Amino acid sequence: MLPRRPLAWLAWAFRGPPGPRGACAPGAAGAWGRRVGPRARRGCCTAPGTPEVQLTQERYPVRRLPFSTVSEQDLAAFERIVPGGVVTDPEALQAPNVDWLRTLRGCSKVLLRPRTSEEVSRILRHCHERNLAVNPQGGNTGMVGGSVPVFDEIILSTALMNRVLSFHSVSGILVCQAGCVLEELSRYVEEQDFIMPLDLGAKGSCHIGGNVATNAGGLRLLRYGSLRGTVLGLEAVLADGTVLDCLTSLRKDNTGYDLKQLFIGSEGTLGVITAVSILCPPKPRAVNVAFLGCPGFTEVLQTFSTCKGMLGEILSAFEFMDAECMQLVGCHLNLASPVQESPFYVLIETSGSNAGHDAEKLGSFLEHSLGSGLVTDGTMATDQRKVKLRDEQEDCPIAGPLEPEVQPPVSGNSAKSCVE
Amino acid sequence: MLPRRPLAWLAWAFRGPPGPRGACAPGAAGAWGRRVGPRARRGCCTAPGTPEVQLTQERYPVRRLPFSTVSEQDLAAFERIVPGGVVTDPEALQAPNVDWLRTLRGCSKVLLRPRTSEEVSRILRHCHERNLAVNPQGGNTGMVGGSVPVFDEIILSTALMNRVLSFHSVSGILVCQAGCVLEELSRYVEEQDFIMPLDLGAKGSCHIGGNVATNAGGLRLLRYGSLRGTVLGLEAVLADGTVLDCLTSLRKDNTGYDLKQLFIGSEGTLGVITAVSILCPPKPRAVNVAFLGCPGFTEVLQTFSTCKGMLGEILSAFEFMDAECMQLVGCHLNLASPVQESPFYVLIETSGSNAGHDAEKLGSFLEHSLGSGLVTDGTMATDQRKVKLRDEQEDCPIAGPLEPEVQPPVSGNSAKSCVE
Repeated sequence: MLPRRPLAWLAWAFRGPPGPRGACAPGAAGAWGRRVGPRARRGCCTAPGTPEVQLTQERYPVRRLPFSTVSEQDLAAFERIVPGGVVTDPEALQAPNVDWLRTLRGCSKVLLRPRTSEEVSRILRHCHERNLAVNPQGGNTGMVGGSVPVFDEIILSTALMNRVLSFHSVSGILVCQAGCVLEELSRYVEEQDFIMPLDLGAKGSCHIGGNVATNAGGLRLLRYGSLRGTVLGLEAVLADGTVLDCLTSLRKDNTGYDLKQLFIGSEGTLGVITAVSILCPPKPRAVNVAFLGCPGFTEVLQTFSTCKGMLGEILSAFEFMDAECMQLVGCHLNLASPVQESPFYVLIETSGSNAGHDAEKLGSFLEHSLGSGLVTDGTMATDQRKVKLRDEQEDCPIAGPLEPEVQPPVSGNSAKSCVE
Repeated sequence: MLPRRPLAWLAWAFRGPPGPRGACAPGAAGAWGRRVGPRARRGCCTAPGTPEVQLTQERYPVRRLPFSTVSEQDLAAFERIVPGGVVTDPEALQAPNVDWLRTLRGCSKVLLRPRTSEEVSRILRHCHERNLAVNPQGGNTGMVGGSVPVFDEIILSTALMNRVLSFHSVSGILVCQAGCVLEELSRYVEEQDFIMPLDLGAKGSCHIGGNVATNAGGLRLLRYGSLRGTVLGLEAVLADGTVLDCLTSLRKDNTGYDLKQLFIGSEGTLGVITAVSILCPPKPRAVNVAFLGCPGFTEVLQTFSTCKGMLGEILSAFEFMDAECMQLVGCHLNLASPVQESPFYVLIETSGSNAGHDAEKLGSFLEHSLGSGLVTDGTMATDQRKVKLRDEQEDCPIAGPLEPEVQPPVSGNSAKSCVE
């Protein structure tokens, strides 16, 4: 079928919205400049001049359970377990007490920074014996308040547990401590021609242990599946200090119940994840991004089916957002749509091993979609500008700050607009 | 790099081994004709004239736990729960009492054939109250004796629980009862341009519930991952009759602990899986198979790395076997290697959406591998004969009847030779 009109093969360029930027984005949102992307921004929530966040215990009707409070003897014990890793400075404790969205604030007076699973085990054993509450914390980039204390829980930070333990260059299996930052792991495995099986906006700050503990989905879920399939093993320390070693690196291990699965997505409620073994796919040699306008939700679904058929194995992301979401992104982030106004927008990413083959497949798909009316306008990103299209999609939660914890079944990726 | 010699682009043809076939395959193995493949064979283990299998309780020092025995009142109760679904005929009970390898035999006197989860629940509740032991059974194709009773356990067959409950043609999510036969499901989803994410030799008899209960890997693990990622939900009935409904069909569901994972691979020890929700990938439009000879294990690993890089997203299987395994296959199954004798053999399968692109990628890879000495001989299957190469690989366990329950980390698929 011939396309009804030629595809707009324009290089993607960010244009400012017509009205003044401040008009629709007052307050905190207005302070977000374009080039301070989520990656850099996360973790910077306590910049000087930012108004103080109300305490969670004052904002919500929560009740502290009868845990003990940290004594001088406890601090001395912690200092013996993690020499130099006990933080009690109130200023240093401000940031880890507040969540990234700045809606929740705890009043923890101690943060511990262990370096090994053994230290985590000794800390938890002590806390268990003393009936002290503990709040594990990774990069503190979560958007549902799970990474900050509600009251005065001890914050157990994985920040110094950031060593890669092994990487197998044939199988692509990475074993590392829980505190490794996702972006650093990405760089590490990319040097060896692999990629991490997950990628998300907070990658510059988030820890792999936190990703696993929250069962993060991210931008590569459609292609590489969920962490339930790619995490091959993990090590966790239970509340009483028991170290649970499930750090296998077998792709199929039927030797008993798969206990590690209980920890994936458990958000620290069953124990502290201290190390993970994860399967990294080979690095694709070619990545293309297309941004399309769709006339309706039916066409979004049909476009999804068509592109699964025509792009097949190279399809690595399919995301959509509605007109309202695009408007919010435009208002808050000084961005405008690269295609004509539409009820729905679709972002398609392909990742493959042969640039020529991929471009041919994507070209055929785009021509077919435009020709059959599934898509009313479209643009394909070129080279260095590809990532910017991606950035816009990653930034959606900033415009409407709710994070989906349940993915709708019709989309394999972060269909943010329909849950915001 | 130029290849040292041209690739043998021969169509694959099965040749008989030089010696008389019976010489190396006496007894049961000798009775296996070439065209009675594992798919047809499984379930035919009690053909007339086959010698009786020794009772498990006589062969091994096992002790019956103090369970009750089935009474007339129990049979009447079962008849009320599953009218017409209570089997007590000794002849009909012969086959379900013996495992596929014919090494184990129970002496169950009752087999129940429920059609719904509710019936399974009522059966188990009754057995729980009466302290009766139960042995769930799917297609009885397992090779580790998990599907047959040890003593006189009641066999709870899923054979009549074979309804497809729903299929979503956009997302490819299939929801079906546990007793659906894998091959029938494959046919069903293939009609709608999808495939099942797993495929294995026993597909003609095995039940999807049994596949999930044993966490079957199979021939598509490398491409589509394990059932831990593709099974989105399941329904199970616990020993006391409680129905556990985790039959979600969301790709990412973080609403609590992922309890279904405990049942995947639990082999019926935690409950009876009665329904599953599974994610089916789109059907590839082109499939190619290549069979290669490798001079050593180091070259096998290097070939794996090279082919992951060069074939990338279209690589759907990489399997290897050693010379001894090939010899056994040749002896027992009247097959000969299509390539010259080598210390190791590698089978590569590609599945993609564009036949031309795939052939080009595979051709480049094969030329490179031959040129660099990683591979000493190779052949690529053509059209209708492709599946025969696959059959040979599927038949490996027949030649040396041990099934790997742990996959070695260097191979993503059923590297049978190294565990047999």
